[in-house]
Amino acid sequence: MGASLLALDWGTTNLRAVLLDQRGRPLAERHQAAGILQVPDRNFEQVLLSLCGDWLQDRSIAIIASGMIGSRQGWVEAPYLTAPITPTAAAQALTRIPLQDDRTVYLVPGVSRAVLDSVDHIDDVMRGEETQVWGADLEPGSIVVLPGTHSKWIQCGAAGSIDHFRTWMTGELFAVLSQHSILGRLMEPGDPSEEAFTLGVQRTLAAPEALSTLLFSVRTAGLMSRIAPSALSDYLSGLLIGAEVASALPRFSAQPEAGQLQLIGEPSLCNRYARALALAGVKAESLAPGLAARGAWRLACAAGLISEISI
Amino acid sequence: MGASLLALDWGTTNLRAVLLDQRGRPLAERHQAAGILQVPDRNFEQVLLSLCGDWLQDRSIAIIASGMIGSRQGWVEAPYLTAPITPTAAAQALTRIPLQDDRTVYLVPGVSRAVLDSVDHIDDVMRGEETQVWGADLEPGSIVVLPGTHSKWIQCGAAGSIDHFRTWMTGELFAVLSQHSILGRLMEPGDPSEEAFTLGVQRTLAAPEALSTLLFSVRTAGLMSRIAPSALSDYLSGLLIGAEVASALPRFSAQPEAGQLQLIGEPSLCNRYARALALAGVKAESLAPGLAARGAWRLACAAGLISEISI
Repeated sequence: MGASLLALDWGTTNLRAVLLDQRGRPLAERHQAAGILQVPDRNFEQVLLSLCGDWLQDRSIAIIASGMIGSRQGWVEAPYLTAPITPTAAAQALTRIPLQDDRTVYLVPGVSRAVLDSVDHIDDVMRGEETQVWGADLEPGSIVVLPGTHSKWIQCGAAGSIDHFRTWMTGELFAVLSQHSILGRLMEPGDPSEEAFTLGVQRTLAAPEALSTLLFSVRTAGLMSRIAPSALSDYLSGLLIGAEVASALPRFSAQPEAGQLQLIGEPSLCNRYARALALAGVKAESLAPGLAARGAWRLACAAGLISEISI
Repeated sequence: MGASLLALDWGTTNLRAVLLDQRGRPLAERHQAAGILQVPDRNFEQVLLSLCGDWLQDRSIAIIASGMIGSRQGWVEAPYLTAPITPTAAAQALTRIPLQDDRTVYLVPGVSRAVLDSVDHIDDVMRGEETQVWGADLEPGSIVVLPGTHSKWIQCGAAGSIDHFRTWMTGELFAVLSQHSILGRLMEPGDPSEEAFTLGVQRTLAAPEALSTLLFSVRTAGLMSRIAPSALSDYLSGLLIGAEVASALPRFSAQPEAGQLQLIGEPSLCNRYARALALAGVKAESLAPGLAARGAWRLACAAGLISEISI
């Protein structure tokens, strides 16, 4: 069976291209460290052709892209759709980019929400995570966590709708504090320390409002030799993930039922989140990888870019 | 009246030298961007002589130094004393550094504490702030806040004792997030925005446990044009200071009585803290500058390095 869709998951630091057949099964996959901020002169078409030009000799293949490629810093800005939003509605709102050979790249819109509740009155946005969630085809009421630079918690409704979501800065806080603050000074590489990670999680689960002072304990735990230099990075990771879990759980339908909370992302990071959630008394299961391509394929079908062949 | 003491406030980024007479009044002051991390080959004696050599022609002048100069990365490590600690006790524990001309530099010890309470079980440390507090000569029960890179909250007891203290990473979080994270991308310089600062404070006062997700709203408030690019930095500052105030107040003797909370530090930063504290219903007053030299003079008197002349 021939290829029918090229699905691009094009983020800030990486481009991942997956070629899919007419049943949505992956035929081949390629990666490149060609995130949108690394592309010279924003010549995205050249990057696409250099990575996937041979595949695109077959002019029947449709092309769809999700992620930060649709942001203001990307190829073309694909407007945000406001949550709640179903994949069917998103498929009707793809942004078209004409290529030089008259082909078209279809960009998946981002999703935004404005919340005016009693506690917080803020906007939130996502680009790319919605496509992964749609690839997972979750039950109504599901809560999904996508750990990463900007960790997302997403609550799903009927017909695959993304009803509600929120972002935590956990991954980026970990990176900038490790690399650019005094907290990284005493850190040394070494084997992961589950004990230090657990200690960090327990401390912010018990006092999430004290994150900014508990962070300083990464410094003092090193100074006073309470935690080994090789374990300080796990301790910091635990503090940040614990604070995220403690503040996210009450914002997402009290305590989700056991097994209802799902994790999407890099396996070792999902494992950290599963451990932190278990310490908070919540079970979570990690979903299989490859969801971005699967979600792109669903959107392409709903948009009529390709015809799904049933088995 | 001649000079009797050279007081050095020697931190990570700056060296401030104050010459005092026998009544502890400042005669002259010099600054240099010669923080301990900027001194080549850790040749601190050379930096001292180059900045103050002319003053030190008078061999009767004693020399005392406080701050990060007494840390492991400084001149010589001055051991921490454990809180509660009085200035009288600290004066008995100065660390001596012999200079090449047989003179001595006396280092003020740092202060540490280990807390094992129901919520947090962490160590904390300070170097330099203790000397400023001792310069302020505060009433027992006073609570002092020293905003900065590592903001300190200090509770005083009898005889100038530092009974209890705690550090918040507020200033360093502001710096690394502005300079190295996505939050700085949309920021532009401009006049201070009291409105954006207040909004940030209100949000974290209402939900301090949500700091890591509210931080992402600096990004989205810029993206969605809710806050002007020139005001985003004030909004971030408000979020961080509000989170500090919200988590510090319950840890420092419930709500201090009106007027009891004191601020020591750079005036515009103290002004921000006073505004954030006012939003939390707490009054604060800023103390006059020059406290590090005054505290060093008190310690030098208590240590018998100089004889105080009464007026």
